[in-house]
Amino acid sequence: MHWIVFLIPVFGVIALIFTAVRSSWIKKQDAGEKNMQELAAYIASGAMAFLRAEWKVLGYFAIIAALLLAYSGTLVETSSPIIAVSFIIGAVLSATAGYIGMNVATKANVRTTQAARTSLSKALKVSFAGGSVMGLGVAGLAVIGLGSLFIVFYQIYVVSQGATVNGMEMEKALEVLAGFSLGAESIALFARVGGGIYTKAADVGADLVGKVEAGIPEDDVRNPATIADNVGDNVGDVAGMGADLFGSYVATILATMVLGREIVSEDDFGGIAPILLPMLIAGIGLIFSIVGTFFVRISKETDSVQNALNLGNWSSIILTVIASFFVVNYLLPDQLSLRGYQFGAMDVFWAIFVGLVVGALMSVITEYYTAMGKRPVNSIVRQSSTGHATNIIGGLSVGMESTVLPILVLAAGIITSYSFAGLYGVAIAAAGMMATTAMQLAIDAFGPIADNAGGIAEMSGLPEEVRHRTDNLDAVGNTTAATGKGFAIASAALTALALFAAFVGIAGISTIDLYKAPVLGALFVGAMIPFIFSSLAIAAVGKAAMDMVNEVRRQFREIPGIMEYKARPEYEKCVAISTKASIREMLLPGAIALVVPLLVGFGLKGVFPTASSPEILGGLLAGVTVSGVLMGMFQNNAGGAWDNAKKSFEKGVLINGKMEYKGSPAHKASVTGDTVGDPFKDTSGPSMNILIKLMSIVALIIAPHISERTGEHEVNKGIQDQQQKKEVVITSDEVKGMTEVE
Amino acid sequence: MHWIVFLIPVFGVIALIFTAVRSSWIKKQDAGEKNMQELAAYIASGAMAFLRAEWKVLGYFAIIAALLLAYSGTLVETSSPIIAVSFIIGAVLSATAGYIGMNVATKANVRTTQAARTSLSKALKVSFAGGSVMGLGVAGLAVIGLGSLFIVFYQIYVVSQGATVNGMEMEKALEVLAGFSLGAESIALFARVGGGIYTKAADVGADLVGKVEAGIPEDDVRNPATIADNVGDNVGDVAGMGADLFGSYVATILATMVLGREIVSEDDFGGIAPILLPMLIAGIGLIFSIVGTFFVRISKETDSVQNALNLGNWSSIILTVIASFFVVNYLLPDQLSLRGYQFGAMDVFWAIFVGLVVGALMSVITEYYTAMGKRPVNSIVRQSSTGHATNIIGGLSVGMESTVLPILVLAAGIITSYSFAGLYGVAIAAAGMMATTAMQLAIDAFGPIADNAGGIAEMSGLPEEVRHRTDNLDAVGNTTAATGKGFAIASAALTALALFAAFVGIAGISTIDLYKAPVLGALFVGAMIPFIFSSLAIAAVGKAAMDMVNEVRRQFREIPGIMEYKARPEYEKCVAISTKASIREMLLPGAIALVVPLLVGFGLKGVFPTASSPEILGGLLAGVTVSGVLMGMFQNNAGGAWDNAKKSFEKGVLINGKMEYKGSPAHKASVTGDTVGDPFKDTSGPSMNILIKLMSIVALIIAPHISERTGEHEVNKGIQDQQQKKEVVITSDEVKGMTEVE
Repeated sequence: MHWIVFLIPVFGVIALIFTAVRSSWIKKQDAGEKNMQELAAYIASGAMAFLRAEWKVLGYFAIIAALLLAYSGTLVETSSPIIAVSFIIGAVLSATAGYIGMNVATKANVRTTQAARTSLSKALKVSFAGGSVMGLGVAGLAVIGLGSLFIVFYQIYVVSQGATVNGMEMEKALEVLAGFSLGAESIALFARVGGGIYTKAADVGADLVGKVEAGIPEDDVRNPATIADNVGDNVGDVAGMGADLFGSYVATILATMVLGREIVSEDDFGGIAPILLPMLIAGIGLIFSIVGTFFVRISKETDSVQNALNLGNWSSIILTVIASFFVVNYLLPDQLSLRGYQFGAMDVFWAIFVGLVVGALMSVITEYYTAMGKRPVNSIVRQSSTGHATNIIGGLSVGMESTVLPILVLAAGIITSYSFAGLYGVAIAAAGMMATTAMQLAIDAFGPIADNAGGIAEMSGLPEEVRHRTDNLDAVGNTTAATGKGFAIASAALTALALFAAFVGIAGISTIDLYKAPVLGALFVGAMIPFIFSSLAIAAVGKAAMDMVNEVRRQFREIPGIMEYKARPEYEKCVAISTKASIREMLLPGAIALVVPLLVGFGLKGVFPTASSPEILGGLLAGVTVSGVLMGMFQNNAGGAWDNAKKSFEKGVLINGKMEYKGSPAHKASVTGDTVGDPFKDTSGPSMNILIKLMSIVALIIAPHISERTGEHEVNKGIQDQQQKKEVVITSDEVKGMTEVE
Repeated sequence: MHWIVFLIPVFGVIALIFTAVRSSWIKKQDAGEKNMQELAAYIASGAMAFLRAEWKVLGYFAIIAALLLAYSGTLVETSSPIIAVSFIIGAVLSATAGYIGMNVATKANVRTTQAARTSLSKALKVSFAGGSVMGLGVAGLAVIGLGSLFIVFYQIYVVSQGATVNGMEMEKALEVLAGFSLGAESIALFARVGGGIYTKAADVGADLVGKVEAGIPEDDVRNPATIADNVGDNVGDVAGMGADLFGSYVATILATMVLGREIVSEDDFGGIAPILLPMLIAGIGLIFSIVGTFFVRISKETDSVQNALNLGNWSSIILTVIASFFVVNYLLPDQLSLRGYQFGAMDVFWAIFVGLVVGALMSVITEYYTAMGKRPVNSIVRQSSTGHATNIIGGLSVGMESTVLPILVLAAGIITSYSFAGLYGVAIAAAGMMATTAMQLAIDAFGPIADNAGGIAEMSGLPEEVRHRTDNLDAVGNTTAATGKGFAIASAALTALALFAAFVGIAGISTIDLYKAPVLGALFVGAMIPFIFSSLAIAAVGKAAMDMVNEVRRQFREIPGIMEYKARPEYEKCVAISTKASIREMLLPGAIALVVPLLVGFGLKGVFPTASSPEILGGLLAGVTVSGVLMGMFQNNAGGAWDNAKKSFEKGVLINGKMEYKGSPAHKASVTGDTVGDPFKDTSGPSMNILIKLMSIVALIIAPHISERTGEHEVNKGIQDQQQKKEVVITSDEVKGMTEVE
């Protein structure tokens, strides 16, 4: 085995060392006075209570799924029962990534509050350190996990069999490795959906009774649901987001590797370079994310926090691009071909570049549609002056409009990266985009930490200036949350397409032809799934919030002295309710995502003479992806825009020549939009990412079982593959020649 | 030419005779007292003012489009400048259909009010007579137009050339005929979108100032916007709906004829039977719609109006099914084949049957999701008790959920009808579903007439019992409006698929392969279009409503004595504002629908070596159709459910053991949902039908220009077609054999 294979986990280890160092630095920071520590302890224990409850349910799920996978692994030659082990490792690492993030976030929050008593600079340092522990931890675990398992499976199935890197043996190694991705993504689904339901049920519940009925401010210690609300930030925005991006990161790399296997490459590494490239790009991105974190700092109270974060982000991206150029040219030869598409090393580099550009544009566009002071948010502000209904209409209209540019960018990205390096180009573009995931996630996770820090400052009655500093961080956190979602949905879309391409290869089909009625029917059904998924997620928030409302009302009624600060509310009961409700409600949407591909893949096998079940499944996946991306963008951006329209009133806005502030009828209308937007932007919208990725991974996992290739063929497939490729290369060459003549 | 060809326009003539008879009967009815007649005259003149303004703009558009079409007709052999004539006739007939409907509706409304002073039975008789004039007029004009133009073009291009019915000559005849459909659908787009904006701008504007600011009831003569509001019902729900279904009806028949040309049929009519069948089915449906109208009657005050309408509807459907059985078996032989798919006469009959079942199921499901007292509406009612935001969340959730069953029915319908008779099956299923369009439209148009009648009763201060009777009719009208929309979107979906299939044939492509990156990119872009279209439509209502609000405020301010009934408001100024705003705002969404297919079809010609521009356009159309159908259902049903949730409070509802009525906070929250739902269900939602059909028709029209077939090939195409078909037939036979062995 070439030494370069062993380099990959090393990158991951370096990241984890940094994670450990930062984490221990945070723990050493001052956690403030006793009451602050007490509140932080409630939040931390509430968050752990949720994780434990979630893990219990997921434990059962994982065991059953692993058994099924192990059995299925015995049925075809290109899989193995070992896939179950791979699955379990993926699930455990995903859960661990969520745990690391949440653990550090619940420590960093109170320490950020305490740091904010000194200076903004110090508060940023602590909160961003927390975020970077999360980011580096997630990406580090992913790279170590994928890298080490690849070494093991490569050794077992390929090297020890003396097989080639393009053959069925490597396909088997990657199919078994796909179990890792399935494990990661399954946990991510439940973490994202469950966490999303949790955080919004607590938020809406706390607001409805606390702010509206009891008339006490947000984050007031007298509100029994306030701890649950703060727990929710960690559960949804930290652990959920972490598991989501862990899943995307792994799935993207894996899909690119699967496509890489099919590439005939005469490189200096025995032809394995196209398979290794995505992991190496991830490793490089990880290292430069570490470098980038050092740029995130401010010195004066008046420095822009957003600029500091941008500097860190852009420096890691630019350094990764430069390094990718050298790595790609070092690894790959000038002649590559995949399924008849010919390209060279530089084409691959440009595809990576396209991916990074798409990611950056997505963030910029998302920011425009959700930022305060820009046209879209201002239009909602203006429409709030004529009431609740026009505020809602304005937000829905902005959300729908906000899909236009991202979709055009995405479509251009797909077509451009494809034209550089075929399907491998689309996949490696996704991998390029995801390379600096560690940095993206650090910036993202910093937001909820700052949010929590503000909550603790409020609950502990710290001076105005402390709250002012945490508010400054929190406002930046709102923007990064929105842009982070733009990045997440775009990466999910490219990941899904990469998985889609990998699926097509393994399932042995050559078209996904909409001209066939069953494929077209499946496209319709697939496109409907994000609608029912969103509907269930939104309705779940409503139901869980009602449970919370009833509990808070009960406590106000039955525990005398809460309102006079004489009695402590039973925070843990609210935490338990949110936990229970969210775990109950996440099951049905989760089941839909997992079961539908199985039903279509196995249930329609051989039913239609004109269309095979993998082709129908392909139509279904296309429908889910297209509709999921649109619904995700629509809901995320509408929610973000409503939120900032409401926030605009806090500073005061000029409507029809009159200043309107908090408390005006227009502001009240804007609160309605914000509340509607909550489940949109924090529950159903972000779930779309996982939905589309998970369904594609399930399809990839079952691909060998529903494949059109029969047993006999499979044995000789490795060799046939090579021959076919060479034939096609010639044809494609001719085609290229013709095009140039035109 | 066989005599049966001449039978088709005869059906249309019969329908128009009935239309004239009914229409003159309505005019002879008592129009009530002077003030009633005065109000009716305002509404009628307002409606005509809108039509005139719209026609003026559309006149310019039609002339330019016709010139372009005439020029384009000179460029390829399978078209002709005559297509421009065909286009103009389609546009004029579509406008005429809208005019007939609106003319009779503005006469029937006041006569229904007057009839309601006598009995419910008489009020139903008058209002339904108005609806049936509209329905029979629309369908009659369509059948006459299509039937006569077909005779002319068939004579010119086929019979006089001595050509076969399967050849390029017939393709040319049908391509020229497609201009008729384009004309009809273009007018429909503007009528639907413009009408939709008009009606909701007037409605929202009237409510915001009248009900909310001035505190006067709905339909109060003192409100300057009240006439505009009543005009809106006619403009949007009558003329807009009529033009929409006229377009669907024509497009469906045409698409089936285009596919029918490719069928090799050894029938007794020289092989033309598959081309004639859709027109004959339409003719039969028209006759039985006339028959069905006689069943719509009640005798007692307590009889159910809904049951009377259902009886009329079902009798026309069942009679059409029975007649279709005989017609199909009379016309078609037992052996037919289309693009390699083999089927017989009975298969075609079953496909028609599938279409009728799909249409019926759509109506039933839509009714469930939007009717009072059922789970979905009740859930919104319950969620209204916790405020505006939860009411909105509830409605959005219901709307999204409501897509599930219709999509499953639609997908099953596509696959089943395809399995019976290939693509011809899908198209003829749509034709079957549309056969009783006259009856559907009669039931649909009856609603706004009853609504207007109620408005006139209120404005003229007639006794309680009159308003009670018109309310009874209006309530049924709300349900039929919702189910009518379910029918319209389902028929649009099947029509679009039929057009899609016809497009594929004429463009000379054999796959629409999502595996090709440009096709997949186009799918994304296509799916985005319904989002931006909806966004524009919704925002347009907001803008136009603001104009209206300002005008009403001005009149209250500047015209003294309005509130004391001493001065008459300037109704016509409000009408003019709504007219101007709606016509201004309809242009951009309309342009998108017309221009995007041109850009993709011509702009991407030869750009990608792997995917031809027709194939990319195919991907775009698939995206538009899938996403448009979902967005249409989502918006229509959410809007309908919100409306009836609000109406539930008028009767009183039980929430948490307490009765809540009009005026309660929960009712106020439900009004917010209703207002949000207005543009959803009456502007953007129903526009989706036209959007998806129009883009498909534009594609079909430009298909010969972007076709992959080159000039040389085209000349011999007729013969080649035949040969290819025979070859494929054998292959398909083998495949069938193989399947049976399995």
